[in-house]
Amino acid sequence: MRDVVEYGHRVLLAFEDGSHFIVSAGEDSFGTHKGVIDLSKLIGAEYGSALETAKGEVFFVMRPRFVDDLFKMKRRTQIVYPKDMAFIIFMMDVKEGDLVIDAGVGSAAMCGALARSVGNMGRVFAYERRKDFYDIAKSNLEKWGLLDRVELKLKDISEGFDEKVNAIFLDVPDPWNYISNCSKALLGSGNLAIVCPTTNQVQKVIEAIESENFIMVEIWESLFRKYKPVSERLRPFDRMVAHTAYMIFARKAEKRRKEI
Amino acid sequence: MRDVVEYGHRVLLAFEDGSHFIVSAGEDSFGTHKGVIDLSKLIGAEYGSALETAKGEVFFVMRPRFVDDLFKMKRRTQIVYPKDMAFIIFMMDVKEGDLVIDAGVGSAAMCGALARSVGNMGRVFAYERRKDFYDIAKSNLEKWGLLDRVELKLKDISEGFDEKVNAIFLDVPDPWNYISNCSKALLGSGNLAIVCPTTNQVQKVIEAIESENFIMVEIWESLFRKYKPVSERLRPFDRMVAHTAYMIFARKAEKRRKEI
Amino acid sequence: MRDVVEYGHRVLLAFEDGSHFIVSAGEDSFGTHKGVIDLSKLIGAEYGSALETAKGEVFFVMRPRFVDDLFKMKRRTQIVYPKDMAFIIFMMDVKEGDLVIDAGVGSAAMCGALARSVGNMGRVFAYERRKDFYDIAKSNLEKWGLLDRVELKLKDISEGFDEKVNAIFLDVPDPWNYISNCSKALLGSGNLAIVCPTTNQVQKVIEAIESENFIMVEIWESLFRKYKPVSERLRPFDRMVAHTAYMIFARKAEKRRKEI
Amino acid sequence: MRDVVEYGHRVLLAFEDGSHFIVSAGEDSFGTHKGVIDLSKLIGAEYGSALETAKGEVFFVMRPRFVDDLFKMKRRTQIVYPKDMAFIIFMMDVKEGDLVIDAGVGSAAMCGALARSVGNMGRVFAYERRKDFYDIAKSNLEKWGLLDRVELKLKDISEGFDEKVNAIFLDVPDPWNYISNCSKALLGSGNLAIVCPTTNQVQKVIEAIESENFIMVEIWESLFRKYKPVSERLRPFDRMVAHTAYMIFARKAEKRRKEI
Repeated sequence: MRDVVEYGHRVLLAFEDGSHFIVSAGEDSFGTHKGVIDLSKLIGAEYGSALETAKGEVFFVMRPRFVDDLFKMKRRTQIVYPKDMAFIIFMMDVKEGDLVIDAGVGSAAMCGALARSVGNMGRVFAYERRKDFYDIAKSNLEKWGLLDRVELKLKDISEGFDEKVNAIFLDVPDPWNYISNCSKALLGSGNLAIVCPTTNQVQKVIEAIESENFIMVEIWESLFRKYKPVSERLRPFDRMVAHTAYMIFARKAEKRRKEI
Repeated sequence: MRDVVEYGHRVLLAFEDGSHFIVSAGEDSFGTHKGVIDLSKLIGAEYGSALETAKGEVFFVMRPRFVDDLFKMKRRTQIVYPKDMAFIIFMMDVKEGDLVIDAGVGSAAMCGALARSVGNMGRVFAYERRKDFYDIAKSNLEKWGLLDRVELKLKDISEGFDEKVNAIFLDVPDPWNYISNCSKALLGSGNLAIVCPTTNQVQKVIEAIESENFIMVEIWESLFRKYKPVSERLRPFDRMVAHTAYMIFARKAEKRRKEI
Repeated sequence: MRDVVEYGHRVLLAFEDGSHFIVSAGEDSFGTHKGVIDLSKLIGAEYGSALETAKGEVFFVMRPRFVDDLFKMKRRTQIVYPKDMAFIIFMMDVKEGDLVIDAGVGSAAMCGALARSVGNMGRVFAYERRKDFYDIAKSNLEKWGLLDRVELKLKDISEGFDEKVNAIFLDVPDPWNYISNCSKALLGSGNLAIVCPTTNQVQKVIEAIESENFIMVEIWESLFRKYKPVSERLRPFDRMVAHTAYMIFARKAEKRRKEI
Repeated sequence: MRDVVEYGHRVLLAFEDGSHFIVSAGEDSFGTHKGVIDLSKLIGAEYGSALETAKGEVFFVMRPRFVDDLFKMKRRTQIVYPKDMAFIIFMMDVKEGDLVIDAGVGSAAMCGALARSVGNMGRVFAYERRKDFYDIAKSNLEKWGLLDRVELKLKDISEGFDEKVNAIFLDVPDPWNYISNCSKALLGSGNLAIVCPTTNQVQKVIEAIESENFIMVEIWESLFRKYKPVSERLRPFDRMVAHTAYMIFARKAEKRRKEI
């Protein structure tokens, strides 16, 4: 089985110095610090193989992972970090075939991750009220080949949600104002996830959640530390990300008692 | 749209004190610290609704998330923690339709997570050499409804892998002995992920990876901290998990230069 | 130079299984899980030497460090953790000869640490309003031989402080109510340190500090992780302390501009 | 009690934008981004008071803390971070009157901290084999007014130590080669502390310690996280230090059993 680059494939070019780029295999040429690359030469190259720039510098022809896309994406907003993104989707239990709301979309990093997780049979309803973000989101989702799984809406969520879904991801400056709307849009036992950068916001969100139909409330934060990959001097890198967001999770349940 | 419990559904019973149980809706009854529950009464109950035990204690009828399954699963081995599991699958870029190798399977926690990620069209080739672990793994995957996506093999990986795959997850005591086999089994630009509990193991793995056809090597560890969900006294819980495993990632590429 | 145990010395008895005890060398005997120890046999033993219990189990005769005292002290309150204590005193710049206020004293863990740092020429003014805590504090400081450096006061700090000092350590439930009193009691450019367990408290303290004569405000928290001391399987212990307190530092300065 | 700047005092000048400088009160003038400061005008100014530059920009006249000195010191080597320094001295139980060995001295950051802790009656024996580091160390200790407590030696520690001490701090590239010398130089139950940046070094140190007369071995690392001091948007800063050094502690004891 040969797995080769075809015309139009998005390709990650990885240099030996650790730098990398994402390009589109086709007619153009692409300039790097290691020399120019004729992008038509990528076509037919095997994934994982080594090629050379015009200057004779080696690079590897790789499929971009979604995590690579995130680091290279066009953005106008702060995005959810990969380290948090994976955990959030796991805790929200998003899986093949699910219906999910994403609000607000921003640059669509999380929207793309959700779209991958719901698969071909699932659907993401993505709310964004700013036209400029909506346009960037659309362009990013299109590039990643995920737009057909997403219903992108230019709409303010203060008007409520139009769908009933398995899970909702909320990333807005004032999430406490939409907890009630989230409760209405979630199917029974559905999952809500919220991200906030400040402790003050978390406090307000928890207060709002307490008064609505939610149980199993959890608040998390994550610290990821990277090590230098040198076997004889193994140690962490000197610096790391100290803070991205607090992650809040809750599940929809009718708090009022019913008789059996 | 009413979403109700049917006969045979696996159901999470969540009490207001934070305790929860996973049961099967059917003829049996289930004893808890809050009184006995007649499991036939679950049938027809709406997900997210509240019911009562024989003693009149309220509980909520919830769909178990995969993360809930992990905390209740039968196990004979240390499992990969959810906090690491989600990140590993993200970095391995596992998605709908992928072919993945999982070795060794252990209790099948990671195997289940991979099976969910590859979806109906994907496939996990799961290697386990111990019959007792193999049996537990099979039983867990069956319970989770994921066995049809997994080809479970009672086989030692020192004999090599039988497939060509997009990604490999390696969780064995001596991973450095199988790096070469992993390189052979991975498609070009495919993803390798390895977990090790000790720094000595990481050192050996990095040394082995350096001498094989891998690039983009990264080593990570994660710390997750949980907060008490009390808005007027927001603070982390007193204790946390300090260490689970170092996570090592690498991508298959032909290090030898080819001429364009 | 022989350094031996004398009558009345406080001695740390360290067993090979990691357990340890602090006793007073004298007439009594002391029962442990490893057999009884005749405490008169300690007298004349060299520090660092090995002795045996009546059952023939080996233990080592050690001087208790202050950090050992903290783990064995009588307490009725939550104490500041050693990991934070050392950093706080460092940031407060407490040194030989300094005058320091400690409020409230609680079980006197921090008070003892401050008393050690100011040395024989310095002085700690220690405020505690509860008689039961005052008594425990006094008893602990006496045992540690530090009471002569501490002026222990049974007094509520809402009445203000009686001294002018180089540094103040504030560990009370409502520190924001005493920021103004702290400002009055601090010498110019003096150091204030405050500990709070919750984010809500930190928010209130910062607000209060902003409106008083303080500059160079910093907020810190620390995470300490311990490793298993096994050279061939080096890794952290499984669990750790996740949270003790937020540490707030500020320095006294006249914010109002003066003409030169 | 007025506490004023005198001729020759080292003074911290703190600007409202968070920048600060350490100068010597005297005849010179000192240029800053906020305008020139006539250093003779500092003389007689009260500590904690506000003055103005020639451009009319306000700054505060503060006593430098030792932690401020560390961030401004002249250095040619990596220094132990304040966050670790305070904890190490605490765990080594260094106090007024103690005798301590510091090897190698480097730029004397730790040496200065130890000298402050042993007080006027204590003594630090400081070993450095490189003349250029020795000279910087001497100059820093002199500036801090701590040189009279330190016996600075231009000497390689492979020749052994000349003193018997309460505690030893070891910060050299190959600490495992000096564990035996440390054991000889420590008084019974004395404290050893070692810092290493890599896990490989820690492994070797632990192996060496196991075969020598040491007990109560502990390995620690610390993560300190700083928060933005903004009460209505309380959150950590974005980035932090991820790694400085592993800290190893052990106590001298005669492992060979003696009869009572």
